[in-house]
Amino acid sequence: MTDWRMYLVTSGNDRRTVEVAAAAARGGAGVVQVRHKQGGDRELLALVTAVAAAVERANPDTRVVVDDATDVAWAARRAGAAVHGVHLGQDDLPVEAARQILGPDALVGLTTGTLELVQRAQQQAGVVDYLGAGPFRPTPTKDSGRAPLGVEGYRPLVQASRIPVLAIGDVTPADVEALAGTGIAGVCMVRHVMQAADPEALVRGVLAGYERGRLAAQT
Amino acid sequence: MTDWRMYLVTSGNDRRTVEVAAAAARGGAGVVQVRHKQGGDRELLALVTAVAAAVERANPDTRVVVDDATDVAWAARRAGAAVHGVHLGQDDLPVEAARQILGPDALVGLTTGTLELVQRAQQQAGVVDYLGAGPFRPTPTKDSGRAPLGVEGYRPLVQASRIPVLAIGDVTPADVEALAGTGIAGVCMVRHVMQAADPEALVRGVLAGYERGRLAAQT
Repeated sequence: MTDWRMYLVTSGNDRRTVEVAAAAARGGAGVVQVRHKQGGDRELLALVTAVAAAVERANPDTRVVVDDATDVAWAARRAGAAVHGVHLGQDDLPVEAARQILGPDALVGLTTGTLELVQRAQQQAGVVDYLGAGPFRPTPTKDSGRAPLGVEGYRPLVQASRIPVLAIGDVTPADVEALAGTGIAGVCMVRHVMQAADPEALVRGVLAGYERGRLAAQT
Repeated sequence: MTDWRMYLVTSGNDRRTVEVAAAAARGGAGVVQVRHKQGGDRELLALVTAVAAAVERANPDTRVVVDDATDVAWAARRAGAAVHGVHLGQDDLPVEAARQILGPDALVGLTTGTLELVQRAQQQAGVVDYLGAGPFRPTPTKDSGRAPLGVEGYRPLVQASRIPVLAIGDVTPADVEALAGTGIAGVCMVRHVMQAADPEALVRGVLAGYERGRLAAQT
């Protein structure tokens, strides 16, 4: 079972990238997505391999997925790295192709962010393991062209989805409790973890906030 | 058998891209590589599919390969498109990974351009079907950081290689006869075909020049 509650998306390609990924895994991040758009696939493969090794040592339950590059995920898995799948955007390869390349055991995630995209993804419920949905707020990292969802924007998406929905797009630790109350499966974070003085503690705080929000919503 | 003599690398993603690819195939281009770095894999997959369909209609003997994106090549083949393989640069996925993903029947090409890179590629003779080697001259399209080879630079590369060597890097039709005399298997062209008023005739001229150069070298 993948723990979706806290999902780290990495940035950069240096020692800190690997160290923060490992610290997040130690703190309990259930998924680490390796995202690095600059450079070629060979560089990405080396980064993915390094992150996977560090994350596996830090927390063998943490899953590692690769942004966009299904072939890189495949090559890393084939080489024995603890890499579990791929995350695809709306402009990337169709999820069916990634599923066929990586096989039934891999994780395949898809970025969405509107009710229409979430509803369309339901037809791929056997193919896609989780949906990223965003942006939560406008974000400097990535401009999808979609309107920001805010907390309340997640309720209709969660209700429309049999697939776990994760919030993404400048989510801060302070947002997690309220977001968890909407029924989302977890939150994705990039900058707030990558730039944290203590990423492990930050992740623990996020998980605690998620649990508070979930419990509050149940009572 | 793949005819390596005239190898088109496309540029752009519009109707002209598809039309020039088909015209080059009609003229006898043995290989069309679809190269399009802008945009996501979904856009590339659509372009590859369109080019493959047009090329297959124009000349069923012409092979179509995808620049860099092994996963896109795989998805296009899986969907039934007449796509035959992938071309990889030194910064892309290792050729062994692409070969494993695409299987034994696919074409896998690799960019080189120094004696050292060509010699290293010989260890992958069962994996790589052809070597691009360049640049022939300095090129505005792509800066590899390698020194231009000129005509004479190809002789030692050809002699060092059991794998067919193709010249790339601002090769013009006027260069082909001299280049063919060095023993290269063919020439790759981008701009000079893509911008030609009559790409089909240009390709026929290149093939004729190649044959003249080869015959002259044999006598």
